[in-house]
Amino acid sequence: MECSLLDARGVNVIAVTPFDSKGDLDIDSTGRMVDFYAEKGADSLTILGMMGEAPKLTVKESIQFAKEVITKAGGMPVVVGVSAPGLAAMKELTSATMDSGAAGVMIAPPHSLRTDDQIVSYYQMVGEELGAKVPLVVQDFPLVTGITMSNAVLGRIIDTVSNVVMLKHEDWPGLAKISALRSAEKNGRRRISILTGNGGLFLPEEIMRGADGAMTGFAYPEMMITVYRLMCEGKIEQAQDCFDAYLPYARYEQQPGFGLAARKYVLAKRGAIQSDMIRRPGPKLSVDDVADIERLLARQEKRLKELAL
Amino acid sequence: MECSLLDARGVNVIAVTPFDSKGDLDIDSTGRMVDFYAEKGADSLTILGMMGEAPKLTVKESIQFAKEVITKAGGMPVVVGVSAPGLAAMKELTSATMDSGAAGVMIAPPHSLRTDDQIVSYYQMVGEELGAKVPLVVQDFPLVTGITMSNAVLGRIIDTVSNVVMLKHEDWPGLAKISALRSAEKNGRRRISILTGNGGLFLPEEIMRGADGAMTGFAYPEMMITVYRLMCEGKIEQAQDCFDAYLPYARYEQQPGFGLAARKYVLAKRGAIQSDMIRRPGPKLSVDDVADIERLLARQEKRLKELAL
Amino acid sequence: MECSLLDARGVNVIAVTPFDSKGDLDIDSTGRMVDFYAEKGADSLTILGMMGEAPKLTVKESIQFAKEVITKAGGMPVVVGVSAPGLAAMKELTSATMDSGAAGVMIAPPHSLRTDDQIVSYYQMVGEELGAKVPLVVQDFPLVTGITMSNAVLGRIIDTVSNVVMLKHEDWPGLAKISALRSAEKNGRRRISILTGNGGLFLPEEIMRGADGAMTGFAYPEMMITVYRLMCEGKIEQAQDCFDAYLPYARYEQQPGFGLAARKYVLAKRGAIQSDMIRRPGPKLSVDDVADIERLLARQEKRLKELAL
Amino acid sequence: MECSLLDARGVNVIAVTPFDSKGDLDIDSTGRMVDFYAEKGADSLTILGMMGEAPKLTVKESIQFAKEVITKAGGMPVVVGVSAPGLAAMKELTSATMDSGAAGVMIAPPHSLRTDDQIVSYYQMVGEELGAKVPLVVQDFPLVTGITMSNAVLGRIIDTVSNVVMLKHEDWPGLAKISALRSAEKNGRRRISILTGNGGLFLPEEIMRGADGAMTGFAYPEMMITVYRLMCEGKIEQAQDCFDAYLPYARYEQQPGFGLAARKYVLAKRGAIQSDMIRRPGPKLSVDDVADIERLLARQEKRLKELAL
Repeated sequence: MECSLLDARGVNVIAVTPFDSKGDLDIDSTGRMVDFYAEKGADSLTILGMMGEAPKLTVKESIQFAKEVITKAGGMPVVVGVSAPGLAAMKELTSATMDSGAAGVMIAPPHSLRTDDQIVSYYQMVGEELGAKVPLVVQDFPLVTGITMSNAVLGRIIDTVSNVVMLKHEDWPGLAKISALRSAEKNGRRRISILTGNGGLFLPEEIMRGADGAMTGFAYPEMMITVYRLMCEGKIEQAQDCFDAYLPYARYEQQPGFGLAARKYVLAKRGAIQSDMIRRPGPKLSVDDVADIERLLARQEKRLKELAL
Repeated sequence: MECSLLDARGVNVIAVTPFDSKGDLDIDSTGRMVDFYAEKGADSLTILGMMGEAPKLTVKESIQFAKEVITKAGGMPVVVGVSAPGLAAMKELTSATMDSGAAGVMIAPPHSLRTDDQIVSYYQMVGEELGAKVPLVVQDFPLVTGITMSNAVLGRIIDTVSNVVMLKHEDWPGLAKISALRSAEKNGRRRISILTGNGGLFLPEEIMRGADGAMTGFAYPEMMITVYRLMCEGKIEQAQDCFDAYLPYARYEQQPGFGLAARKYVLAKRGAIQSDMIRRPGPKLSVDDVADIERLLARQEKRLKELAL
Repeated sequence: MECSLLDARGVNVIAVTPFDSKGDLDIDSTGRMVDFYAEKGADSLTILGMMGEAPKLTVKESIQFAKEVITKAGGMPVVVGVSAPGLAAMKELTSATMDSGAAGVMIAPPHSLRTDDQIVSYYQMVGEELGAKVPLVVQDFPLVTGITMSNAVLGRIIDTVSNVVMLKHEDWPGLAKISALRSAEKNGRRRISILTGNGGLFLPEEIMRGADGAMTGFAYPEMMITVYRLMCEGKIEQAQDCFDAYLPYARYEQQPGFGLAARKYVLAKRGAIQSDMIRRPGPKLSVDDVADIERLLARQEKRLKELAL
Repeated sequence: MECSLLDARGVNVIAVTPFDSKGDLDIDSTGRMVDFYAEKGADSLTILGMMGEAPKLTVKESIQFAKEVITKAGGMPVVVGVSAPGLAAMKELTSATMDSGAAGVMIAPPHSLRTDDQIVSYYQMVGEELGAKVPLVVQDFPLVTGITMSNAVLGRIIDTVSNVVMLKHEDWPGLAKISALRSAEKNGRRRISILTGNGGLFLPEEIMRGADGAMTGFAYPEMMITVYRLMCEGKIEQAQDCFDAYLPYARYEQQPGFGLAARKYVLAKRGAIQSDMIRRPGPKLSVDDVADIERLLARQEKRLKELAL
């Protein structure tokens, strides 16, 4: 299988899904949002992830939104989240979006899985159902899925599911897992791309352990892109300076569930989307939350100036 | 809201979803299956429940199957399971099936809910989204959903969500919950129908506590119907004799997850469906399992003859 | 390691812990209870299991109770549940009770374990800490522990932890697991004893799959013993007749959590213990519950007479 | 009840439990560790919390360690974690440590609780069992306990359990909870102390919402103390500067489970304890982990100098 994702490096930004103030899909904002991510330096995009409110869309809406993003993205690769309670729905969304030019699909394990064998079997079954031509990104995000994938499980998936080209690494703690995966590749396992999540909160350490970059949705994608590029150039201290400047707000945006409201607020403020609307059920910012965010962003701006970043 | 479900009594059979040997929806078997349930005495049906493999169908398939069942059911009320990860998908399926003549919809709480307030808010939100005209059945099945609804939570839902007309009671242990709900009604809370699940495994005791009947999917619906009718006539010992005769196999079919394979095997054997096919991921019967089932059914038949039932 | 548990067959009764009406350990009742179990035909006992309210005892009480049971049991083997949040406490209780003559210890996996490797490592660590001379029973009870042990995990534990002499099998559904374990033994894995739990609710099928008997706590241990013996003699139908006669009440006693109140009520009624007291937090029988039980027991007695059992 | 904890403000440091290189309790290090925390400005201490490896100690060890800390702490209040699977063990440890001069006990909810009513009942039962004279700290840490306590639940506990004098706030996200609790107090609910956890990772925002300080175990307690004091003086920007300087490492130490190994490594490096030994099962630092920590600490030191802190 030819697949650009297998060699993916840099920053894949997890896009939000823009809604208008009534909660309808804001297709008009979509192009603007894609441009925003591209201007900030995104190497690729992922849509319909957890922070993309994927479960809140109908299948029709999902397909419509995916087509719009892929079109507007020009040649930039777009990964589509297709996690679904059943394989039939997963296959339907996969076919529609791959036909529209998606670069691959991302799938998280369903929360009902219990044992190593069940997790491996699940990805094997998914691989068979979707067919060998569909590049597959495994999302490893125990905090939300409730499923912990050991190094052994990931190894068995990589060994037996040829579709798998990338790990969206989002375990926490997760640094040892990157080391273990890279070490296994030195001992002969085929190499896949590892892009890391968690809002970029451990990006410098993750790159040092062998991650190929980030795949996450921080409202300031330029932080991740700058950190990644500086680290590639060996400028570790500068990379960490940049990271540290954004960290106080990044930490705030990384609050589970709540974080999406902060992220959409900032993205709307930055002009990436028209409205910070979140479909129900979802978090809402209080006056105090907004005050926190504005205070942190003011400090962030000041610190970036001090550092001339 | 006028709603026959509010006064529902007797046995609502949770139907399986028939697939052909390739795993495609077996629409041809659907009428036969509906007839089977009707002939055995079902008062109403529920489709697209957990044991109806609902999550394994696409939305299109769900709507197609629901329409077929509703048509074939003639006037018999049909409840449709519409649990979904998001409200938009839930609303889409609800609208399509209510338009086709469904009697109401059944909704289980998503596994992500944590507190009493979150559970109550969820049903309030669902009630608002679906609109007051859609009769709502609350499915209370902690073993599978992971969500325990206290008596207080159920009370708050009944008090504040006018759509709610029925509880599919499937807590385990759950007898005290029936007593508590009925007791609250004596103290002024509006009355809703309580139909019980768990494969009918506690049906005699549940009826004695005040349940209005059963809403579950045992392969021998006639057991539940006979037990219900005998108990209504005050023939407790006879009802229990009937129950006991089916219990050894009922216990076997009630094994979580696995039970669906047994149920479909027996339904196919009884001619209710053409194939016992289950979509992946799903259980399969081994040679030993089949031997167990056949042995239990032979004994069941013998015991029923002894009892002249 | 010489160990009678490795070849254990028959019925190991999980004993309750008797308290007096104030909630204090009822040491006086202990001998009577041991005699009751022995008279009913128990081959061995297990104390301080989950249904023995083990977590509600102090270490001192646990050791005192264990010593009393072991003394009163004469030569009958006694397994002691020593599951604990930490290894130091587990070791303390193990040493004290092994020194007093326990036949071995039973350990359930802590609910914090996530992956296959974590489960296997846990038992390896336990094996090392307790030392190779302590016979170990692995308790596999996912409904309560939240930990699912695959066949592969059990195999790895058996292969690498020499202490392990017995599986307390309590998975549900669990029949295929017994078949898989016995099949692996045919292919060379060392044989361990498999005794089954779940209140004996699948005992006939479990023995047919290769279980060596039961290890559980039904209030009528004579049912399990009779079933086991008849099946050993090849009298399957008679065994199942006996089983079926007790099944309606066995099903009732098997309600999770609640069941202990039913069991202690019946054991007190049968004279095995003085009081049906349960330490807080614990279930209590309502008037309706007692009526259910009495009705079921009256029918059970009648049915046993019909069967001349 | 007179209780200093009710008015507690400032920083209560959650102490580790020092072990020697063999894994034995390092009583000799205890005084040194207490002095370290006192010198850094701790207002009070908590021992035998989750990060104090409490479940890995025997009851004897727990009591011995608690006595040593209380003695060495002089007049500084010491809270003792007494969470236990059962009330008898909890009561045993509570009595022994209160008799030795503990200021109160901290209790987390057991993971088996499901509904609001169950959580409230649990604390009511605990309050009754321990007696009204024992000041009680409620630990609200859903990430580890799996129990989410709503504002309503906390309110009911505060209203009905007079022992409760403090909330160890460790929900995440948790800022809105502080606002809600403080708001309820304005409307008449009795005031309790709220100290926050999570390694201090949201300390500035938490204090702004009304928290009285921190109760957590960061290896640099002086950060929390400085932040608290500066904020009390209204020097928000300076407080945040201090916080930001420590944040890159604080984030690293806050990795669940793993963090204890980092914390003990740094505490040993700073001379607070002799050995960074962790009892099994527990995390171990790799060479890469140590390199990460050393790099972060070097940058932290540099940044503190820049800020003249």
